[in-house]
Amino acid sequence: MKHYGGQPSSTGGMKRAPLQEGWELSPNDPTGPRFRIEDIYPCVDGGRYPIKHIAGESVEIWADIFREGHDVLRADLVWRAEKANDWHREPMAQFGNDRWRGRFTPPQPGWYLFAIEAWTDQYGTWRKEFLLKQEAGQDVMLTAREGCDLLVELMPDAREPRLVVEAAANKFAETHDPVHLLDGALTAAIEKSDARPDLTRSHVVPLLAERARARAGAWYEMVPRSQGSVPGRHGTFEDCIARIPEIADLGFDVIYFPPIHPIGHTNRKGKNNALKAAPGDPGSFYAIGNENGGHDAIHSELGTFEDFRRLNDVCRQHGMEIALDFAVQCSPDHPWLKQHPEWFKTRPDGTFKFAENPPKKYEDIVNPDFTCADRIALWEALRDVILFWCEQGVRIFRVDNPHTKPLPFWEWMTREVRKRYPDTIFLAEAFTRPKLMNALAKLGFSQSYSYFTWRTTKDEIQEYLTEITSHPARDYFRPNFFVTTPDILPVQLQTGEPWMFKSRAALAATLSSNYGIYNGFELIEHDPVPGREEYFNSEKYEIRTRDWNKPGNIKNYLKQLNMVRRQNAALLQTNNLRFLQIDNGNVTGFLKESVSHDNAVAVAIALAGSQQEFWLHFGGEEIGPPSKRGGVRAIENLVTGERHMLEWGGVRLRIDPAKDPALLFRCHA
Amino acid sequence: MKHYGGQPSSTGGMKRAPLQEGWELSPNDPTGPRFRIEDIYPCVDGGRYPIKHIAGESVEIWADIFREGHDVLRADLVWRAEKANDWHREPMAQFGNDRWRGRFTPPQPGWYLFAIEAWTDQYGTWRKEFLLKQEAGQDVMLTAREGCDLLVELMPDAREPRLVVEAAANKFAETHDPVHLLDGALTAAIEKSDARPDLTRSHVVPLLAERARARAGAWYEMVPRSQGSVPGRHGTFEDCIARIPEIADLGFDVIYFPPIHPIGHTNRKGKNNALKAAPGDPGSFYAIGNENGGHDAIHSELGTFEDFRRLNDVCRQHGMEIALDFAVQCSPDHPWLKQHPEWFKTRPDGTFKFAENPPKKYEDIVNPDFTCADRIALWEALRDVILFWCEQGVRIFRVDNPHTKPLPFWEWMTREVRKRYPDTIFLAEAFTRPKLMNALAKLGFSQSYSYFTWRTTKDEIQEYLTEITSHPARDYFRPNFFVTTPDILPVQLQTGEPWMFKSRAALAATLSSNYGIYNGFELIEHDPVPGREEYFNSEKYEIRTRDWNKPGNIKNYLKQLNMVRRQNAALLQTNNLRFLQIDNGNVTGFLKESVSHDNAVAVAIALAGSQQEFWLHFGGEEIGPPSKRGGVRAIENLVTGERHMLEWGGVRLRIDPAKDPALLFRCHA
Repeated sequence: MKHYGGQPSSTGGMKRAPLQEGWELSPNDPTGPRFRIEDIYPCVDGGRYPIKHIAGESVEIWADIFREGHDVLRADLVWRAEKANDWHREPMAQFGNDRWRGRFTPPQPGWYLFAIEAWTDQYGTWRKEFLLKQEAGQDVMLTAREGCDLLVELMPDAREPRLVVEAAANKFAETHDPVHLLDGALTAAIEKSDARPDLTRSHVVPLLAERARARAGAWYEMVPRSQGSVPGRHGTFEDCIARIPEIADLGFDVIYFPPIHPIGHTNRKGKNNALKAAPGDPGSFYAIGNENGGHDAIHSELGTFEDFRRLNDVCRQHGMEIALDFAVQCSPDHPWLKQHPEWFKTRPDGTFKFAENPPKKYEDIVNPDFTCADRIALWEALRDVILFWCEQGVRIFRVDNPHTKPLPFWEWMTREVRKRYPDTIFLAEAFTRPKLMNALAKLGFSQSYSYFTWRTTKDEIQEYLTEITSHPARDYFRPNFFVTTPDILPVQLQTGEPWMFKSRAALAATLSSNYGIYNGFELIEHDPVPGREEYFNSEKYEIRTRDWNKPGNIKNYLKQLNMVRRQNAALLQTNNLRFLQIDNGNVTGFLKESVSHDNAVAVAIALAGSQQEFWLHFGGEEIGPPSKRGGVRAIENLVTGERHMLEWGGVRLRIDPAKDPALLFRCHA
Repeated sequence: MKHYGGQPSSTGGMKRAPLQEGWELSPNDPTGPRFRIEDIYPCVDGGRYPIKHIAGESVEIWADIFREGHDVLRADLVWRAEKANDWHREPMAQFGNDRWRGRFTPPQPGWYLFAIEAWTDQYGTWRKEFLLKQEAGQDVMLTAREGCDLLVELMPDAREPRLVVEAAANKFAETHDPVHLLDGALTAAIEKSDARPDLTRSHVVPLLAERARARAGAWYEMVPRSQGSVPGRHGTFEDCIARIPEIADLGFDVIYFPPIHPIGHTNRKGKNNALKAAPGDPGSFYAIGNENGGHDAIHSELGTFEDFRRLNDVCRQHGMEIALDFAVQCSPDHPWLKQHPEWFKTRPDGTFKFAENPPKKYEDIVNPDFTCADRIALWEALRDVILFWCEQGVRIFRVDNPHTKPLPFWEWMTREVRKRYPDTIFLAEAFTRPKLMNALAKLGFSQSYSYFTWRTTKDEIQEYLTEITSHPARDYFRPNFFVTTPDILPVQLQTGEPWMFKSRAALAATLSSNYGIYNGFELIEHDPVPGREEYFNSEKYEIRTRDWNKPGNIKNYLKQLNMVRRQNAALLQTNNLRFLQIDNGNVTGFLKESVSHDNAVAVAIALAGSQQEFWLHFGGEEIGPPSKRGGVRAIENLVTGERHMLEWGGVRLRIDPAKDPALLFRCHA
């Protein structure tokens, strides 16, 4: 990789046209950009949104690059960190049919820009044509003189290459022998020439580089006030700290806390979402703010900032990170209502307008008005909440209901935060229409909640996963498959069958490199509000205590899944998914391979509780590095170590869901 | 359709944000455009190139339009002729899943622009929520007061609607009865309000509207000097005129002449492309220019400008048009070499650089240097050639080898010409790589030569046609299927079997709404230069005379094809193509339906010379207007009138290629 300076080039020995953007027809000089640079891939919505990538990994960029005629063309991929001045450049190579490719590696998390520059290799063109004429036995003396003139015209400014070119021209002038114009050193020397009169630059494409945790992580959602061991007593950060070793041992990477802020009193909700709280009811932690503070305060019964920092430290020591909830809503007692009443809508009777989705009312919550006259101050205050928690050491934020707040806010806020803390990860909790979910993913959320919860049949799973792992979604949408959330106890888990809990966990943990459970899942908690996909006695409205080692728990199963994930880089990606053929509608199977091609995993998971027999077929799927890519020949069970040789490209398998609904194999070529 | 004024709106009763472009994140006010307007269809390369359409026909525009939340949204399709000041607007309707559609009709040929505007229907949102609360039995008095306040805020400027809104607000103030706020007239009145604070406009998409001839025409290529009847005598425009009634009777729409300009003497080519012409050899008409003039002159042996105008008039009288060749190359005797030597490259010995594609040389031709210092004057002179012939009444230009001249030239030139003569049609004769052919089609060529000539098997035909009639090509690429050209006598025609000539003509005339033959095709001329796809004794280098009624000619066959085309609008489009299932690899079959849904044609064509039997299956294909769309139930032979009822969605047919390799049917639902 070499630096090229802030602008594509200075003026060389030749008259040089101004830099021409590939997408603009110049209004003054009709002789616009000579090259077409089209169909750049990856690229989201023509460059309107960034492609997503992992810092430190090389990204391959493709484009159609061409101009008229048959001249020899050259192209560079130019790139820089958004805030840097200098472009780096990497040569691109033609792949075929006017399609070119190049690659670069964004070194650190942050925003990057890249573009493609193309120009005519005038010397290369002359050289090619000269050799063709010479081979055909034509008189090439005049052509040789043209070549010499061209070398002089293209004379590089830098000393070393200039000497090479001058020497060649001088030797030719002395001897009239064209061989001096064909010297191999000339090609490299002329590359340094700045004379690129038809240099054309493509439009610029943004890239958001994130750290690996953005792409892969096992999340454990934990309600801190329920982590205590004494029934009825409010759990504390201290109680959370006590649980960290256990959760770390289960192999989770991220501990996600719903809001930890002071809870409002006015119109506080009671148990099971009752409109009126009973005395002593703790209220919903989504009714944020009271006399003790708002989004930048901690609910006093949980502990102090010092306790929180200690919790954070203990998590880090155990290789885990905290994710905090960012819910843009205020209880009627939130300090902002007094400090900034102009940020909230008032009604004709002077009261604040509480949240509603008619005819539903949420009287314990008031929403800030993102379009109020003082909106810039409001937006900045909300951004500052995130920055505040960043300063406390938090780098992962799960954002509540972003689809009900203006999209421009999220685009602006996530950019603002990443300018200061480029390693910040944002997860969008938007269970809404697909276009809106995609828009949130495009504009800057690292990860997104998904429809996985409601995809249960083989067809549903394969169709949905194919959609989100294919172009265009694969370049911007990273799912995080939660099997449950405090809001969602899906129908398939309401009967409480352990095999189904395991099957859903295995699907989530292997289909998606980001997945999560909500505490209690490991204990097979499954009591719904009748007729709804909600938990009965939800800890959103009360304090729970649990026996975390209750008999029948599936902690060991989850631990095993997380261990297999950590040991197999193939599972730490999502869009490397390839479904495999299985002759059984109750079993889904797929193959994943790591970026570096040194790890490939095949998975088969039962979707029904009875014993399943089936052929797992690998078809024409190949694995391994480009140099020795080939079909799968053997698979090795990652849990039992059992090895199967493939027959006719497949293998006969049996799953007993009562024992384990998932088979996980390492593949060998 | 109503006019809305030059800008989207003036300021209404409410504070109004400046117009926000959907694709820009505002740097000053982070509270940028509220709406996302995405995936506009049709749209070529994000709006970089125009979509192609036919003037007078309505075009349907689709887009994803959404913002956060659940408010009631509105959207308009705004459009104007590129040079007009005022935008027209048409309401868009939601189709489902955040996808909206609207339509407009560009009235005349020319460039148009369209965009999409979206805004929140604040009154509609209030109304919806009010009714939901009222239905749920909630106290709605405060909500009603909010509605009244909103009406006042949204007060339209125009008198009529203002009176409606004022009356409603006043009645509510008097009676406190919300019914006055729900009056149906209010919805229409509030539509006139300019208060659209979150109005967002999409990026602008260009559209090139052309006349119907750009989409459909039967072309007859005719070498004028070979239209005489006395062997050895140079044909004239007078001879051409004599042939017009016959060609018109055959049903052709366009008569295309290769260059009609003076022919150079220097290095003139002889018969069969001999390097040296014999005395009396007429030379290649592609070596343009001599002492009598260049691109704006007529070869004197053909006749005068008055003769040309008469020829043009006679063509018009017979419902035909002339297409002229535009070949940007000069004989060494072209006047420009003396007048503008700076437009041409010279070699170190002072000579002009003749055309070459090493090791091939074209010594009878010198190419202008499109990148010379005086290029603007050169480009303008070339444009002026086209304008000159436009002034002579020509509106169709077949452009020779555009892929060897800079793409920006064609983009600029076609736009320049269409500004003055918006009904000009350009056909690109570029037999080159696919990306380059597509680029020429995108940047402004109405039609393109194609790979049809080399697509002969069923698979090849179906694959190629599917490619060019599918997204994205369908929105910009219009093929013109030539069965032969002066340069190309394809292998499949070299044995001279009449059934093959008929089969190829039927394929060209029915697969593509633009198709053409080169004179002699109707006489089954088929002598190649051995081992090449070129004509022996090509009239590119000599004068020919023919008996146009030679026995064995297929003129009646072509006449019948052209008649069926004219009588069936379904065949006057290309991208309405739907292939049908046929259980015979030697027969291809397809269905086409007209824009207005009142004509549907099914076609089956034999690709082998022996008798073919097969089932033609219509599968699930439906025809007819949206209101009563249904499967095909019967088909009627367009030549014999024979009628077949479909059995099980198909029909058993037989083709005897010796009689007619094509079956053409009108379909009945």
